[in-house]
Amino acid sequence: MITSPQNERIKRMKQLHKKKGRVQTNSFLIEGFHLIEEAYAAKWNIQTVVVREELCVPSFLQGENVLRVSERVFDSLAQTNSPQGMIAVVEMKTYSFIDTPLTLIIDAVQDPGNIGTMIRSADAAGFGLVILGEGCADLYNDKVIRSTQGSMFHVPVLQMKLEDAYKELRMRGTNIVATALEGAVDYTKMITDEKMALLVGNEGAGVHQQYIDMADQIVKIPIYGQAESLNVSIAASILMYDMKRKIASVS
Amino acid sequence: MITSPQNERIKRMKQLHKKKGRVQTNSFLIEGFHLIEEAYAAKWNIQTVVVREELCVPSFLQGENVLRVSERVFDSLAQTNSPQGMIAVVEMKTYSFIDTPLTLIIDAVQDPGNIGTMIRSADAAGFGLVILGEGCADLYNDKVIRSTQGSMFHVPVLQMKLEDAYKELRMRGTNIVATALEGAVDYTKMITDEKMALLVGNEGAGVHQQYIDMADQIVKIPIYGQAESLNVSIAASILMYDMKRKIASVS
Repeated sequence: MITSPQNERIKRMKQLHKKKGRVQTNSFLIEGFHLIEEAYAAKWNIQTVVVREELCVPSFLQGENVLRVSERVFDSLAQTNSPQGMIAVVEMKTYSFIDTPLTLIIDAVQDPGNIGTMIRSADAAGFGLVILGEGCADLYNDKVIRSTQGSMFHVPVLQMKLEDAYKELRMRGTNIVATALEGAVDYTKMITDEKMALLVGNEGAGVHQQYIDMADQIVKIPIYGQAESLNVSIAASILMYDMKRKIASVS
Repeated sequence: MITSPQNERIKRMKQLHKKKGRVQTNSFLIEGFHLIEEAYAAKWNIQTVVVREELCVPSFLQGENVLRVSERVFDSLAQTNSPQGMIAVVEMKTYSFIDTPLTLIIDAVQDPGNIGTMIRSADAAGFGLVILGEGCADLYNDKVIRSTQGSMFHVPVLQMKLEDAYKELRMRGTNIVATALEGAVDYTKMITDEKMALLVGNEGAGVHQQYIDMADQIVKIPIYGQAESLNVSIAASILMYDMKRKIASVS
């Protein structure tokens, strides 16, 4: 059992709190039973499981690389207030571009909770791919991971330049629907196609103009009251469910 | 100018960080230019504006009760990291029950961000009333206020027992639509009525069974992927926009 927060393995794990450390080792941390169970079920490579001294190792993790640590060591590694005594080091997964009817593209959304919630909604709405463009919160940020509630292990998420994403989507004949306030039609008038991609943007500034200009359609959600706008993850989810309904009624 | 965080007025204001202090004085704090501007425009009673020493008082606040404070005093009162140098004490507003086509009822949702986001979405979707039942985060909690983005000043929000809310809604002939996983129909099959109320519940446990049993309809949002559920503020917003569309197409 490791009892010192200065232990070399623990110190290396703490470097995974930062993006630099994650990129260098191609791995990241997840906390809590539920997320670890989801990662395991989805066959992600769990490299190490750190378990607090007094806890039993769940049966599905027996045979895995388990590291027992004292409460003090555990708390020094944990990033949430109640991580349920279990933290795992998981290897990142690299996906190639996927041919799928419904794709969500996110342009420069900075809030980790919004990114995670959109990945969760994309999973729920049956979207096959999520693309995080430049300026988005890192997929492996602990708050992003927590907000996905496990959906990051179900839906392929690519971090790539939107220029490149557009090329891939074009090659596959995907109809790209951008959200914007100007020059946009009510989303209920969106034209349905066999393959569609929804593009949403930054909380304050919206989608970069260059990507709006290159889109096939521009839609907006009407505001009936006095609110200035909807939260981006709310707007994306309303539109994703609408697109799922439309595409299901066509096919 | 107040330079001591131990100043009696500042100490009394700090008591508004807690629900007890807010209830005792019937007032609450809001931070930042945008929220203060929204409260002012909506004619809420701004009792005091605390302004950090080096800042100018915006023109619409001239003539109000302005209190100049040093940076140290300001920071001791602020609850956000970047409160833009301005905090206001605002009097609570008491609404009576309102006859409106669309009402949102929230049962025991604990996360302040979810409560605030739902109030914002209710405003955007043209809902006329929001009801917070027992077990919900307090409306005047700073995180709730921030997440409403000002919509709490646009839409009447009542904090009351759901039994009483049901009575009021029944008296007005409102069709109550509860969300649940069991015994529910797909939300696209929801029956439209002239007056409708949407009932959503706690993040983990959902709506209390007694309120589901008393509802006129039970609906759910289908999950197409592997996510276990949607975030409650996402689900509520998808349903509110769907109800708004349905009710608009009827009238």
